[in-house]
Amino acid sequence: MQLKRLLPLAAAAVLLPSLGLAQEAEEAVDALEAITALNTEMVFIMNSLLFLIGGFLVFFMAAGFCMLETGLVRSKNAAMQATKNVALFSLAGIAYFVVGFNLMYPLGDWVIEGWLGGISPTVLEPVGVGLDEVDDIEYASIGSDFIFQLMFCAATASIVSGAVAERVKLFPFLIFVVVLTGIIYPIQASWSWGEGFLDELGFLDFAGSSIVHGAGASAALAGALIVGSRYGKYSKDGKVNVMPGSNLPLATLGMFILWFGWFGFNGGSQLAMGTIADVADVSRIFANTNLAASGGAVAALIMSTILYKKPDLTMVLNGALAGLVSITAEPLTPGLGMATLIGAIGGIIVVLTIPLLDKMKIDDVVGAIPVHGFAGIWGTLAVVLTNPDATLSAQLIGIVLIFGFMFAASLVVWLILKAVMGVRVSDEDQVTGLDKCDLGMEAYPEFSNT
Amino acid sequence: MQLKRLLPLAAAAVLLPSLGLAQEAEEAVDALEAITALNTEMVFIMNSLLFLIGGFLVFFMAAGFCMLETGLVRSKNAAMQATKNVALFSLAGIAYFVVGFNLMYPLGDWVIEGWLGGISPTVLEPVGVGLDEVDDIEYASIGSDFIFQLMFCAATASIVSGAVAERVKLFPFLIFVVVLTGIIYPIQASWSWGEGFLDELGFLDFAGSSIVHGAGASAALAGALIVGSRYGKYSKDGKVNVMPGSNLPLATLGMFILWFGWFGFNGGSQLAMGTIADVADVSRIFANTNLAASGGAVAALIMSTILYKKPDLTMVLNGALAGLVSITAEPLTPGLGMATLIGAIGGIIVVLTIPLLDKMKIDDVVGAIPVHGFAGIWGTLAVVLTNPDATLSAQLIGIVLIFGFMFAASLVVWLILKAVMGVRVSDEDQVTGLDKCDLGMEAYPEFSNT
Amino acid sequence: MQLKRLLPLAAAAVLLPSLGLAQEAEEAVDALEAITALNTEMVFIMNSLLFLIGGFLVFFMAAGFCMLETGLVRSKNAAMQATKNVALFSLAGIAYFVVGFNLMYPLGDWVIEGWLGGISPTVLEPVGVGLDEVDDIEYASIGSDFIFQLMFCAATASIVSGAVAERVKLFPFLIFVVVLTGIIYPIQASWSWGEGFLDELGFLDFAGSSIVHGAGASAALAGALIVGSRYGKYSKDGKVNVMPGSNLPLATLGMFILWFGWFGFNGGSQLAMGTIADVADVSRIFANTNLAASGGAVAALIMSTILYKKPDLTMVLNGALAGLVSITAEPLTPGLGMATLIGAIGGIIVVLTIPLLDKMKIDDVVGAIPVHGFAGIWGTLAVVLTNPDATLSAQLIGIVLIFGFMFAASLVVWLILKAVMGVRVSDEDQVTGLDKCDLGMEAYPEFSNT
Repeated sequence: MQLKRLLPLAAAAVLLPSLGLAQEAEEAVDALEAITALNTEMVFIMNSLLFLIGGFLVFFMAAGFCMLETGLVRSKNAAMQATKNVALFSLAGIAYFVVGFNLMYPLGDWVIEGWLGGISPTVLEPVGVGLDEVDDIEYASIGSDFIFQLMFCAATASIVSGAVAERVKLFPFLIFVVVLTGIIYPIQASWSWGEGFLDELGFLDFAGSSIVHGAGASAALAGALIVGSRYGKYSKDGKVNVMPGSNLPLATLGMFILWFGWFGFNGGSQLAMGTIADVADVSRIFANTNLAASGGAVAALIMSTILYKKPDLTMVLNGALAGLVSITAEPLTPGLGMATLIGAIGGIIVVLTIPLLDKMKIDDVVGAIPVHGFAGIWGTLAVVLTNPDATLSAQLIGIVLIFGFMFAASLVVWLILKAVMGVRVSDEDQVTGLDKCDLGMEAYPEFSNT
Repeated sequence: MQLKRLLPLAAAAVLLPSLGLAQEAEEAVDALEAITALNTEMVFIMNSLLFLIGGFLVFFMAAGFCMLETGLVRSKNAAMQATKNVALFSLAGIAYFVVGFNLMYPLGDWVIEGWLGGISPTVLEPVGVGLDEVDDIEYASIGSDFIFQLMFCAATASIVSGAVAERVKLFPFLIFVVVLTGIIYPIQASWSWGEGFLDELGFLDFAGSSIVHGAGASAALAGALIVGSRYGKYSKDGKVNVMPGSNLPLATLGMFILWFGWFGFNGGSQLAMGTIADVADVSRIFANTNLAASGGAVAALIMSTILYKKPDLTMVLNGALAGLVSITAEPLTPGLGMATLIGAIGGIIVVLTIPLLDKMKIDDVVGAIPVHGFAGIWGTLAVVLTNPDATLSAQLIGIVLIFGFMFAASLVVWLILKAVMGVRVSDEDQVTGLDKCDLGMEAYPEFSNT
Repeated sequence: MQLKRLLPLAAAAVLLPSLGLAQEAEEAVDALEAITALNTEMVFIMNSLLFLIGGFLVFFMAAGFCMLETGLVRSKNAAMQATKNVALFSLAGIAYFVVGFNLMYPLGDWVIEGWLGGISPTVLEPVGVGLDEVDDIEYASIGSDFIFQLMFCAATASIVSGAVAERVKLFPFLIFVVVLTGIIYPIQASWSWGEGFLDELGFLDFAGSSIVHGAGASAALAGALIVGSRYGKYSKDGKVNVMPGSNLPLATLGMFILWFGWFGFNGGSQLAMGTIADVADVSRIFANTNLAASGGAVAALIMSTILYKKPDLTMVLNGALAGLVSITAEPLTPGLGMATLIGAIGGIIVVLTIPLLDKMKIDDVVGAIPVHGFAGIWGTLAVVLTNPDATLSAQLIGIVLIFGFMFAASLVVWLILKAVMGVRVSDEDQVTGLDKCDLGMEAYPEFSNT
């Protein structure tokens, strides 16, 4: 509600004393407050609800990543991939609570202004918080904000786990996850979303094509380089050995779950749902998000058919995801046609760049770097196509700094882990499979023929 | 809120001038508007939110159909079935945006009044739309409506893909999907939901037992007839060869996802949630929808045990789905007992008619025609049992016209596709499997013994 | 909104007559009512919406249980496990409608005050209910409450099916489910949530660590004892034979779905979302629930690595679930750190007690008794750590009575079923597998090597 529409009630409060009605004037003020409070409450409730809905939708993306990755690894590593995904999400939650959230949202309480946020664990509003005690009555409850943002943080770790699958050691990987989700990602994200220096610079990334997806892909690239490729992936004669995923229906389910969760990822990033304008914007975002995924999937279907004569299911899955990543930086301002196009270009990028990584002998098991990194860059640049507030220079600076910092910081952590405890499963154990060697169990004990 | 309760404020606006308070009178009018606006905004927000929640729930049904179908085909065709499902959903979104939505909801802008809607792509409200610029302030944002209706449109294509699985060619099928979701379904649906001639006639189909499910089943029947049965399904001696689904747990998951999404499918079709009456109605619909599914599953469990001595999991799954389809035409007016009964009869219909199709040598891989078609007819007729506004004649006319049009139009498209490019995979390739032949990959490369 | 803030409007109603404006005074009363009504409506709508969202989230837990259990049984019993899960959920809905709901919520209409609720089927509010006809305008629509509570009831049956998997006969099991969900659980739950004697005693169990999870585990324990262990599980020489789950990725998916649904399970149990305090509380609950699951998973990962040298995926899955069960009795009052700790202790309990059951030769296929029973007891006791209203004595009395009654009543039903029709599949059929013997189909006809 436009609160200025309540001015007449305020006028009445002024008028009544001149009629000799002092008490009534006071009461008119209270009436004014009552209507305003009702409005304020509803906005707060709707905003918080948006975060809660967004929270559970984006939570489910953890399951989506897990199914996608578990379906795309060989069956001898599938239980380990599932273990990593459950553990990384669990650790991300704890790390984000202990230090990440306040590092990301310093709310003025910076250690280094605009660059390094505050260091303290998350504290929520008290039980049964009153109208006057709420941390930010114009916004939403801290708990709803925390749960929503936590899911974004965890997504960066999920992206990494796919790229370094089938050969990274479990515990070093999990230590990396803790540092990534507790420190590296929150610091980087604070630059834009915590009102840090990138925000001041005018860098725009609505729901995180770069801030989340590019960040995850950068950390994944560092990991893939340090951990090295899977045993047998690249022959000495330069041949690339295909290692097909063991359960494509499961991977397809994972993609659908991610698409499902992305409505919360992008829609929730409107951050408000208590006015007509906000709910209509969330609706726009839903529609654009869906069409970008459509565009990405269809483009990947066509491109893979043209390039390889036959359509490729994993390319279609990654195409849809690339479409989603591409629209994430600006899911609001494009029209439906432009959203479809932005997604389609994302899909094409993925089909063209996945083989490229193999040529550079960078072993990215699920295609996470092209999907979240290359399409993320594209999406971040594409903001300038539809949002007049965006400048190419700010977008470029943001991309370079985000990808650069995430890659460099991750590289350092991976290198330390490699030096201290080793990060790579031995070739022999890779041949046997991580499930048997490191878990002592099999994902599908009755099925596998290998 | 009943707006007439605000009349006293209006009275004050009239009264004040007589007290010589002209300006105050004007301000009272504004105050009146402020409260009204708050109410209007909340209704708009809640209605839009219902569509958004319904939207992501019904979206997930695309995953449900995909898992159900992928689990019920043989493993050699599972990757292709997944590919078809991802591609069909993606194309449906684009086709519905480019032409479908405005064809379905002409809002008075008909090409042929009541029969053929407007032809133009969807345009959403502008970013940050104001109270006065909104397209229909009494209803909901266009974007939320679009995303909700798009999911229904895509469902019709998902239904078809199950029936013609394991032998239809990918690209002809996808072309059919584009025509179905862009043109055929929207035209048909406009007759009832776009305020076309069936609506004027008094035909009632709340969430689409006929308009969506029957429509999909009719298109599926046309496809199954033109594409023909799977190689080896029907022996020349009249024997029906069972081709069991390769992954029944996955099919079960698909059924559960569909049930989950159906809360949005039926609940969202209340189209409003901003008043006590509306939210209580949505609640009724949730409860009735759930019990109809229960009734369908239990009835199918009992019937299959009686008929075949042993319960049949795929019958139970299809029974639950048939229960859901049956209640879809009227999930609001029945009491809980009647809802259970309507669903149970749907479940029985499916158990009885699935073998019937086989006798007619119509090869419907997942039972889509009985589940969505026969139970859809039953559900559409059952409206007269609980809704006094329904007439048997209007329901019958609607069923005949919807099924007839959908079947005939689909048949023409399938015949053209058959003539131009062929729609059926060769028998040899069917023996090898569509995954290897047409995708060059396998769904489960390490598991399959066949 | 604090309604006392509307007092000035009431004052105006009193004031106006003294100005000789009788009619205007009456109208001021109506204006007062209008604003109050708007507020009342919004609270009713938001509360009902919370139940509806909670309802579909907790519904999906039925799919989660199904996938978890189907993934943890051997493939020869997987289709049967899926069948049981679909059928139990369907029957639970019908039983809860026919008698359970009113037995659980007598609303003063007790057969035996505080101990045995009313006996009648559920009747919802009429279609298009008005403000004045609503059953409880301060609360939510009956339908939304019914659908939410139904899902809790069904969860108890899902817990049982996991424990007695792979050897219980289908139809005796389903009869047990009907009695459990229609009668035993509702009576027990009425003691606390239906304002029965445990509620008066001060027993606190926010979302059902004992009332739902402990109840299910108690029924499961009775079942496991009467049905006996799986053929070959315990050798005569005391050796425990490991029978590994056939599809761990599917089990992992099941865990993720359960975690997803738990946001509704605990969040919805706030029972209200129409004020700032309530929505902030729901947010706290989301955050605490998530961190308890994190704590449980991480603790189980570490504990299983310490105890068995290698981490164990099924322990990690059960650890997350134990964390969720542990926080369920009080997800609101703990801070985030305490929530993590409560969940972690739940995870440790599960790792320590799962082998214990095997030592006692109690065959619990999926670990349901430790996860839902032992962690449930811990969670119920842990309420006293953070909620000053809880007393250890009331919690202990509640636990003893709930577990005791649920176990005893279930035992009686299982014993009757055993005497009348037998509850255990023959050893020969267990060797062949329940799928082939009792369903005549296979879950994975093309995969299994056994």
